[in-house]
Amino acid sequence: MEFRWARRMSGMRTSEIREILKLTQRPGMISFAGGLPAAELFPVDRVDEMTRLVFERDGYRALQYSTTEGDPSLRQAIADRMNRLVGAEIGADNVLITSGSQQGLDLAARIFLDPGDVILCESPTYLGAINAFKGYEPRFVEVPTDEDGMIIPELERILEREGSVKLAYVVPEFQNPTGRTWSLERREAFLELMVRHGIPVLEDSPYGEIRFEGEQVPSLISLDTEGIVVFLGTFSKIFCPGLRIGWLAAPLELREKFVMVKQGVDLHTSTLGQRQIATYLEHFDLDADIRGIAELYRKRRDVMLRTMEEEFPPGVSWNVPQGGMFFWVVLPEGLDAARVLERSLELGVAFVPGGPFFPSGGNQNTMRLNYSAMPEERIREGITRLGSVLREMIGEMAPVGTPPEQAPAPEAIS
Amino acid sequence: MEFRWARRMSGMRTSEIREILKLTQRPGMISFAGGLPAAELFPVDRVDEMTRLVFERDGYRALQYSTTEGDPSLRQAIADRMNRLVGAEIGADNVLITSGSQQGLDLAARIFLDPGDVILCESPTYLGAINAFKGYEPRFVEVPTDEDGMIIPELERILEREGSVKLAYVVPEFQNPTGRTWSLERREAFLELMVRHGIPVLEDSPYGEIRFEGEQVPSLISLDTEGIVVFLGTFSKIFCPGLRIGWLAAPLELREKFVMVKQGVDLHTSTLGQRQIATYLEHFDLDADIRGIAELYRKRRDVMLRTMEEEFPPGVSWNVPQGGMFFWVVLPEGLDAARVLERSLELGVAFVPGGPFFPSGGNQNTMRLNYSAMPEERIREGITRLGSVLREMIGEMAPVGTPPEQAPAPEAIS
Repeated sequence: MEFRWARRMSGMRTSEIREILKLTQRPGMISFAGGLPAAELFPVDRVDEMTRLVFERDGYRALQYSTTEGDPSLRQAIADRMNRLVGAEIGADNVLITSGSQQGLDLAARIFLDPGDVILCESPTYLGAINAFKGYEPRFVEVPTDEDGMIIPELERILEREGSVKLAYVVPEFQNPTGRTWSLERREAFLELMVRHGIPVLEDSPYGEIRFEGEQVPSLISLDTEGIVVFLGTFSKIFCPGLRIGWLAAPLELREKFVMVKQGVDLHTSTLGQRQIATYLEHFDLDADIRGIAELYRKRRDVMLRTMEEEFPPGVSWNVPQGGMFFWVVLPEGLDAARVLERSLELGVAFVPGGPFFPSGGNQNTMRLNYSAMPEERIREGITRLGSVLREMIGEMAPVGTPPEQAPAPEAIS
Repeated sequence: MEFRWARRMSGMRTSEIREILKLTQRPGMISFAGGLPAAELFPVDRVDEMTRLVFERDGYRALQYSTTEGDPSLRQAIADRMNRLVGAEIGADNVLITSGSQQGLDLAARIFLDPGDVILCESPTYLGAINAFKGYEPRFVEVPTDEDGMIIPELERILEREGSVKLAYVVPEFQNPTGRTWSLERREAFLELMVRHGIPVLEDSPYGEIRFEGEQVPSLISLDTEGIVVFLGTFSKIFCPGLRIGWLAAPLELREKFVMVKQGVDLHTSTLGQRQIATYLEHFDLDADIRGIAELYRKRRDVMLRTMEEEFPPGVSWNVPQGGMFFWVVLPEGLDAARVLERSLELGVAFVPGGPFFPSGGNQNTMRLNYSAMPEERIREGITRLGSVLREMIGEMAPVGTPPEQAPAPEAIS
């Protein structure tokens, strides 16, 4: 039968990353492609122990339906953590437990976006968010962004030009894909503009707690005096992703809308999963776990950084993230990262080209490298192989007869 | 700040049932309101045991991200069960694991429905489905339905009148809220019409396996030769709902669309939850569990039925379900079940008025009674109290001076 799809389906394709990730399943593949946390740090034994405790205490309740809002003690624990760690001033009633923070993205889009509405985002921005929002047929407006966040004069120009903007989506901490963190000045200027133009802000912070150097910058929700920020958090990167437990924190009026919408979408998030995490938070020191995660990721970042410095040819640049899971690499203009990927896959190395992270396209000469999921030895080996591919392909780009030394000068390496 | 919501939010309210369910939390309340399975049958010890086994075998994988499609061995087990139990002919690749079958409803609406599109449903239909679909702003067209399913000549008239219909939603087994099961003849005639008019069918079957008497009728998916049926299943009623694990089975082309859409919505369903159920299916006899559930529910249905026969006054009628969890009660015209509820809550008895199950409204003189969640003694007590409320209110309806014997004759009690 010829099916008649909804209009929103016409722009939808399977995520490019998803297809690449399938290739990375091949045995022996060195993958910098995914955004997987290091599984060897998952506290399997402790989660096992806590699960037994959940079953012992009230297994029947843990397997029964529960409220859409989520487990009250988990919501309280999350509010307490956020008040302590990101300077929020919220209570359990501001929190909604979500099925991963991906669901928070979907729910926010559903609440705010009609077809054609403008959503502001960083350039580039998180691909999973683009995918979540696309189903609501908005118009993405990318705000030029540098190492410190959205560039304010550019943002002002865009706000003037667009008139009406429905929602702003930002990842101010160790952004995916760039690893960038916004400065305090940019945060304040950004929020002021959002308030002035009446634009609610979605602050997505999956990596915020995984900082291994530098000073923490106040979260947008802590700077928000007008109640316009919805904060998305998740246990996926600081605990484990397999339980699919995230949360959002929002002003009461907004939280009510989210609850109502989630009710129609999946009733509620796993009762058992919520009890497991609540019990874990009660008995163990998640902050200590996170320090362990940050320590490991810092080492892996360092190895990747050193190896890139040694192996990547001139003309290739990257940032140095102070936390999170990603390097963002810029290749010489004209070198397509998708073609680089083809060759590097032949050598058993995977990564994600950066192009798909730009909703308006372009920027084919960028790539995202994940350092959280591979052990140091494999990072060294994989980056070395990738370096050989880059040298080869950049060499091919140079005019015939021109020695490599005269190839385009290296861009600023920050 | 004044938020500007998406248009789809304007028709959205918190589910009436949800608000009633909050009242049922009061201690001592006898609740026929929810759709909760009997928690005392949850195999807590065996789930506990299986969870340990999951952690023992590969706890790291169980806590990591996994594919959107879902656990391959769970999908295979589901396909095998469906082939055996509902006469499907599918493989693991036809199955997508969902976050409860509520998510299947949401995804189907997202794939097929543009604002204003017509969706056909039974009259009445499942309230959770109405809530899921509403976000996509369709036009609900209720097809008059009797004890055997949609009334075919009425359906034909509607199809002729409407011209274009995008989707049909049906619960052919022990429907929520009516407890009705479609006859084979109606199923065949319905499917033939759907094929002729090119309308995909969403067959929602959460209760299908909980049959305690009568003969099983072939599922729509087993009768479908054209690949137009999407089957929604769930472990919520046959195992436990707290894990939020459901599935859908669909032709490959359709399943691909569902996978793509789910990816943007919540990436995937809990890896651990899926491993727990897959491991349970491997080691225990779920069919035997389900026989135990059906046996208990039959007893509870019998107690409720007998007590209604004894305590409900003339003018009140109900069906007798052969499975599932609900009685559907029709009160005399003009008696508003919401008013009955107000008085019965004062006596500590809760139920759900039937009106909200009709997308086009009306039918205020109906109510849904759940018998799965309360022990026999409380069913007897609650129905007796409810009977006293009904006698009182029907008495008040009768013209002054008319003795109760001359009140409207009882409707056919099937």
